[in-house]
Amino acid sequence: MPSVSHIKIKDRMSILSLAEQMEAVKVLGPGRFGKAARILGDMFRDTNCMKFVSLAGPLIPGGLRTVITDLVQRKYLDGIVTTGANVTHDVLEALGHRHIVGSENADDVKLRKRGLSRIYDLYVTQHSIEALEKATYRMLDHIPESKRRNMGSFELLHELGGQLKDNNSLLRTAKIRGAAIFCPGIFDSMLGLHLWTYSRLHPLVINPLRDFTRLVDMTYERKRVGVIILGGGMPKHQVLIANTYRGGVDAAIQITLDRPDGGGFSGAPLEEAISWGKVKTPKNLVTVVGDATVLFPVLALAALQQQRT
Amino acid sequence: MPSVSHIKIKDRMSILSLAEQMEAVKVLGPGRFGKAARILGDMFRDTNCMKFVSLAGPLIPGGLRTVITDLVQRKYLDGIVTTGANVTHDVLEALGHRHIVGSENADDVKLRKRGLSRIYDLYVTQHSIEALEKATYRMLDHIPESKRRNMGSFELLHELGGQLKDNNSLLRTAKIRGAAIFCPGIFDSMLGLHLWTYSRLHPLVINPLRDFTRLVDMTYERKRVGVIILGGGMPKHQVLIANTYRGGVDAAIQITLDRPDGGGFSGAPLEEAISWGKVKTPKNLVTVVGDATVLFPVLALAALQQQRT
Amino acid sequence: MPSVSHIKIKDRMSILSLAEQMEAVKVLGPGRFGKAARILGDMFRDTNCMKFVSLAGPLIPGGLRTVITDLVQRKYLDGIVTTGANVTHDVLEALGHRHIVGSENADDVKLRKRGLSRIYDLYVTQHSIEALEKATYRMLDHIPESKRRNMGSFELLHELGGQLKDNNSLLRTAKIRGAAIFCPGIFDSMLGLHLWTYSRLHPLVINPLRDFTRLVDMTYERKRVGVIILGGGMPKHQVLIANTYRGGVDAAIQITLDRPDGGGFSGAPLEEAISWGKVKTPKNLVTVVGDATVLFPVLALAALQQQRT
Amino acid sequence: MPSVSHIKIKDRMSILSLAEQMEAVKVLGPGRFGKAARILGDMFRDTNCMKFVSLAGPLIPGGLRTVITDLVQRKYLDGIVTTGANVTHDVLEALGHRHIVGSENADDVKLRKRGLSRIYDLYVTQHSIEALEKATYRMLDHIPESKRRNMGSFELLHELGGQLKDNNSLLRTAKIRGAAIFCPGIFDSMLGLHLWTYSRLHPLVINPLRDFTRLVDMTYERKRVGVIILGGGMPKHQVLIANTYRGGVDAAIQITLDRPDGGGFSGAPLEEAISWGKVKTPKNLVTVVGDATVLFPVLALAALQQQRT
Repeated sequence: MPSVSHIKIKDRMSILSLAEQMEAVKVLGPGRFGKAARILGDMFRDTNCMKFVSLAGPLIPGGLRTVITDLVQRKYLDGIVTTGANVTHDVLEALGHRHIVGSENADDVKLRKRGLSRIYDLYVTQHSIEALEKATYRMLDHIPESKRRNMGSFELLHELGGQLKDNNSLLRTAKIRGAAIFCPGIFDSMLGLHLWTYSRLHPLVINPLRDFTRLVDMTYERKRVGVIILGGGMPKHQVLIANTYRGGVDAAIQITLDRPDGGGFSGAPLEEAISWGKVKTPKNLVTVVGDATVLFPVLALAALQQQRT
Repeated sequence: MPSVSHIKIKDRMSILSLAEQMEAVKVLGPGRFGKAARILGDMFRDTNCMKFVSLAGPLIPGGLRTVITDLVQRKYLDGIVTTGANVTHDVLEALGHRHIVGSENADDVKLRKRGLSRIYDLYVTQHSIEALEKATYRMLDHIPESKRRNMGSFELLHELGGQLKDNNSLLRTAKIRGAAIFCPGIFDSMLGLHLWTYSRLHPLVINPLRDFTRLVDMTYERKRVGVIILGGGMPKHQVLIANTYRGGVDAAIQITLDRPDGGGFSGAPLEEAISWGKVKTPKNLVTVVGDATVLFPVLALAALQQQRT
Repeated sequence: MPSVSHIKIKDRMSILSLAEQMEAVKVLGPGRFGKAARILGDMFRDTNCMKFVSLAGPLIPGGLRTVITDLVQRKYLDGIVTTGANVTHDVLEALGHRHIVGSENADDVKLRKRGLSRIYDLYVTQHSIEALEKATYRMLDHIPESKRRNMGSFELLHELGGQLKDNNSLLRTAKIRGAAIFCPGIFDSMLGLHLWTYSRLHPLVINPLRDFTRLVDMTYERKRVGVIILGGGMPKHQVLIANTYRGGVDAAIQITLDRPDGGGFSGAPLEEAISWGKVKTPKNLVTVVGDATVLFPVLALAALQQQRT
Repeated sequence: MPSVSHIKIKDRMSILSLAEQMEAVKVLGPGRFGKAARILGDMFRDTNCMKFVSLAGPLIPGGLRTVITDLVQRKYLDGIVTTGANVTHDVLEALGHRHIVGSENADDVKLRKRGLSRIYDLYVTQHSIEALEKATYRMLDHIPESKRRNMGSFELLHELGGQLKDNNSLLRTAKIRGAAIFCPGIFDSMLGLHLWTYSRLHPLVINPLRDFTRLVDMTYERKRVGVIILGGGMPKHQVLIANTYRGGVDAAIQITLDRPDGGGFSGAPLEEAISWGKVKTPKNLVTVVGDATVLFPVLALAALQQQRT
């Protein structure tokens, strides 16, 4: 029976060295974190691996926008499955608006009166959301009507990405680098409200079946599939269920604060997905319990440092 | 400053009496639980209130199917916004299949080989999911093609509900009682996979914009809107965002194990929704921290007992 | 393979009937809650069972003081293992002070200036804590010095209980009914600070070895041992480890919001305790995920209703 | 109003640079993590600051033994307040025993038969616990009887530390470097059981009042006090309450997976402690939501890298 080893910190050590020491612990949090860093590094290195990330929770407004965009830019991510909120926040910033540092103890009635909407301790201005409406309408007008009558969200987001100017934009970078962004719940967001009001005056059909067809096709395009799950929700489920046709993903890491015992899918361990054919084997799987906005940048840095060796 | 009072249990007391004692505590868990029971009772009593429930997590397979169905049957619920999984599990049972008692420590590789798919400690047979495919196709064939070319999920689910025979079915009961079931992520489920494969051979377009239009319309049909949020995810967000046009909901309770500090919407307090215009005032709002599959039946019983007084 | 059954609510049903329906679900939260109600009912009924409860978290100040006291009064609890805080709050109320309804969003700097100390959304007055000091000194003075030189916490708390007048007091009721209260971390509380300052001027030794000896002796006094674990911490561990000498407890329920994956003992499943010899078999064990201040009163009511049948 | 900035990863960047980028985000998880790294770095640098760490949960067996020991060796930690379990595991390893890599899904009945005791996914052998008994007795025999009749846990642990040979031992290193280890619940552990059985045959009194006196004295010995809280429980409370006499600590970070809404002290925000006089101001306080076994090594590395600049 192997025994637990202990982490030895040296002041000049890289985060990669620390992650390797953690993997050697083999148990509890350090074992899981170290394994996640290694799986992520292997995934990044593997050019025969189609790499998906699922995004739920305030990753884009919460400081990770450039982290994700840079990984797309460097071809470490091929498919992004995201909530509508993360798309909304990317477009808001691409249009020049900023997210504001606030407080989780703020009086929401007062915030409402001041035109500020809250996500835990950050604020979005109602002003920027109104500006988003006009910009969305203008961008939609530029899409040929024939196309607008039957698009997947990934096609819509490519169109928007092509019209945005900000080099830090996830949508723009994905468009340029040929990565696909899927947003299965695009209407369930501020951007989505603007799509809906537009659709009442102009032809616009977002067809989720087109998304699913493209997503399933992508799972067949390379030898292997790897998935990075940040938060849970529909993005997590969508990317995994699309892989059932090919027999499941080959590798996956998830970072979540949701717990498994309630039975919800967000907190479910990746092993459970094996029984559904969404994951192939228990080998390259790991759940790291924690806040993805903290842990993913650290894991990504460790994985990038693996690419240099 | 009011002081905390203490719960006094008497052996013959009803759950309603206990909930009233809890509300009198005014703080911590008992205060929140007691307030939730009172808000729910008020909501049920108010015939001028449009009542929505959002369902995320394994409520239907996890023993609450009849609880929800009976509330629809008795006109205590007008709109249901749910994950695709809960719809899938309702249809599976309506077709005569059963969910199986299992173990959360099962070996998922072995379960896969035995044709069992796992949700924490309950199993679904692959056999039943295959049978679902045939039944889904048959039911879709019965829907006129002209209709199939542009439906909201609520229209599709009414059609399916009309074809199911099981009186305990949520879909059937909703159809009969005129309640609407919205499933913003219907493709993100086993039923959804069958819709997708069908759509590749036959005309079928599920248009989420139709859903959102109907959902928004419903928010205007009565003087007040009340929302019961069981779990988080897109169902929670969808029902709240649809209410922004009317200035927010009037009352809401949520039961969740998700925590707020990660910033995700599932665990966000209802007060935060005030800053987005999704909720009107902080008055009739409460978050109960806990497992909805445990707490909702207890709260529902307390609320029903209020209707008799 | 048994299948999941569904809960059927009837307006007039008792909480016991609902709990029985939940046990029949057999899976997820309802299965765990229903099983806990049944184990608790069996425990209460069994006069050959020594019944312990462990208390961590704000149970006494948070509205459950009378719930616990009444169970002691009715001989359903023989041993209480608790944090110092719960003892402190019992004595505060016994001296006529009240806990105040507050807010979790209060400004703690302002509260400090106003002489209010906060536990989530309830307050304690500094005034009452100062009054506690005088009362504690007075009560200690009444204990013979020879006794004071070597007491277990259970002996000290019997002495205090004998001097308090409040019939709702846990300490007084335990004294009268012969139940023992163990407080392994008694110094780690406001009452403990007063014990410490007293000890600097007067003879006072609280000897934890005496506590442990008495606790272990109690585990041998009846055929069976049952444990109710409310919250985690040292109270949970102390009561379980004391039972290793007799080969483990026979039945246990725990209610906790702590999660297992961090590896801490508070969130650890009861099954893990089998490997340590703290629990005998997996038969009569269940963990209910949730807030003990909400769930315990409900479970206790269901268990009491079982005694009448 | 300041705006949220985004993290920019560069492959060669140090964990310190990443932590600085996170602090600049200012909100959500990254803001909290970055602030914690900065507070920890400031604390380490400040020679006029008395530095305490509280340990709850499986830090020593879970791979962080050397991390903690090295910080003591380098004088970055002056006082350690810990559960009995962490002391037990340090002594076990110092005696040459190892912790074993296991599985959280193991059958605990079988483990029991095989003489293995489980902490989530790591095992301890019963053999090593029996060997601990003999070694403990032997070490106790070497302590002069007069001393044994009235010791604080910090004195006992200094004695044991002086007798252990392992340079990686926390107890030995603390003894050599003059750091104090307080264990307010020392009897509540396997080591504690051996102390208890010893005490039934030989004179041994562990007097918690001596511990508290020494702990309070330490809080006065330097201009400032800083506290690192890993996990919650009594170690967290003990170190904070001891600082009330001097008006509260000057700086504190805590890493925890426990949530605040249950009202328990383990998950309580540090701000709440201001209202109790345990913390001075809200300035240098931060709670990082997460698993301390993962996050503390990363934060410690970032803080150590700050010492070099």
